[in-house]
Amino acid sequence: MSLNLADARTIITAAEAKATEIGQPMNIAVVDAGGNLVSHVRMDGAWLGSIDISINKAFTARAFDLPTKDLADNAQPTQQFYGIHASNHGRIMIFAGGIPVKRDGVVVGAIGVSGGAGDQDQSVAEAGSTAL
Amino acid sequence: MSLNLADARTIITAAEAKATEIGQPMNIAVVDAGGNLVSHVRMDGAWLGSIDISINKAFTARAFDLPTKDLADNAQPTQQFYGIHASNHGRIMIFAGGIPVKRDGVVVGAIGVSGGAGDQDQSVAEAGSTAL
Amino acid sequence: MSLNLADARTIITAAEAKATEIGQPMNIAVVDAGGNLVSHVRMDGAWLGSIDISINKAFTARAFDLPTKDLADNAQPTQQFYGIHASNHGRIMIFAGGIPVKRDGVVVGAIGVSGGAGDQDQSVAEAGSTAL
Amino acid sequence: MSLNLADARTIITAAEAKATEIGQPMNIAVVDAGGNLVSHVRMDGAWLGSIDISINKAFTARAFDLPTKDLADNAQPTQQFYGIHASNHGRIMIFAGGIPVKRDGVVVGAIGVSGGAGDQDQSVAEAGSTAL
Repeated sequence: MSLNLADARTIITAAEAKATEIGQPMNIAVVDAGGNLVSHVRMDGAWLGSIDISINKAFTARAFDLPTKDLADNAQPTQQFYGIHASNHGRIMIFAGGIPVKRDGVVVGAIGVSGGAGDQDQSVAEAGSTAL
Repeated sequence: MSLNLADARTIITAAEAKATEIGQPMNIAVVDAGGNLVSHVRMDGAWLGSIDISINKAFTARAFDLPTKDLADNAQPTQQFYGIHASNHGRIMIFAGGIPVKRDGVVVGAIGVSGGAGDQDQSVAEAGSTAL
Repeated sequence: MSLNLADARTIITAAEAKATEIGQPMNIAVVDAGGNLVSHVRMDGAWLGSIDISINKAFTARAFDLPTKDLADNAQPTQQFYGIHASNHGRIMIFAGGIPVKRDGVVVGAIGVSGGAGDQDQSVAEAGSTAL
Repeated sequence: MSLNLADARTIITAAEAKATEIGQPMNIAVVDAGGNLVSHVRMDGAWLGSIDISINKAFTARAFDLPTKDLADNAQPTQQFYGIHASNHGRIMIFAGGIPVKRDGVVVGAIGVSGGAGDQDQSVAEAGSTAL
């Protein structure tokens, strides 16, 4: 019950189209049900620092089965998960751009997007996460 | 003066029963008096990202001989231990779910629980920490 | 298609019985099909340094779908995989004690054992890997 | 003077075709002239442990502008670069499968392949590195 490479490419194609539409080059990563990388692309001109972030956003979305944007709310100072970004050897990303990918209601992987403002990353991730 | 594997299993059994009772699958870890892992279980369906967190909560609770929930108060911005989560190579967890385990008033290890909301993690950790 | 916690406990019970039989306390770890930890136990008196090794042996056996003992042959100086132990952030163990666990011919996880001589680790891992 | 995403895809397509031809699923990664990841794919069934290795082989091939296979000869015990695999935070891979990619005689990036025996990785990397 995990997405495969063909699924990952479908997701990335949709996300890439959205990134092109909004005019913001992105790093886009897809992980499987085990949280392991299936595919990554860095669009021309996208930030180098976002390679790692996109992969980790995808990991985080699968690691907790929720959008990283939602995790952010709980990871602020004084909130219940404040400090979670120090766990998992620096792989937990607590801002928008990571979203679980579901098939028939079951999480089969996740997408992570990084390269723009938070709402841009989020919209590109949404385009990808709903492509299956 | 440290808990052993049989103790860890008693603690995990009690914690697991509580997790089942509240309907939230958890990662549960127990460390000994040296802060080193004695046992870990990931219940079916529990978050992958919580493996590391449960082990680190247990370490943290023993490392400072206090519930990680209490550490949280002191680790917020402007408080005296703000920044402590950057120490110990990312092993310090500053939110609820880690509790020292005592025998005859002496800390002999700790339990760490991760997989739900903060109060869920805390209630499962409490069930485990009082099982000896 | 992954082993679950009940499977992991069956595997650990069999491995632990073997370790007791040969009189050598062990660290025993089981990972799922995604390479993520499902359960770990450290038997009383087992080496502290073997906590990490047992978990990483299990990861390695799943990461390459082969016994770590076989990987060792290929990871010696002048052999084709020499240097592989530097990859995956130090998680690749290239000596005996890690074995994939299969169900109906498919790898569904792996066991890692550390705490004794290589042949002891291997025999305990074999007892666990064939328990399902 | 660096390869871009379109180039990376051309390289990956050629490498993937070779991997399919020899019947061995692979992880394939391409880095740019800066040594930074441009794209990665994990073919269905390819080893999880090879995600990191493929990316690092590509990095290494660009980092030293030579095939990782050649580096191996110099990285054996008693040879001049013995110990180099401990540098660069574990990113240096000293076995076959990483090859620089040139355009008009200039290195513009590199490909890294991992998932089979050394000669399989090498042949797939060669198919990719000559695709531009």
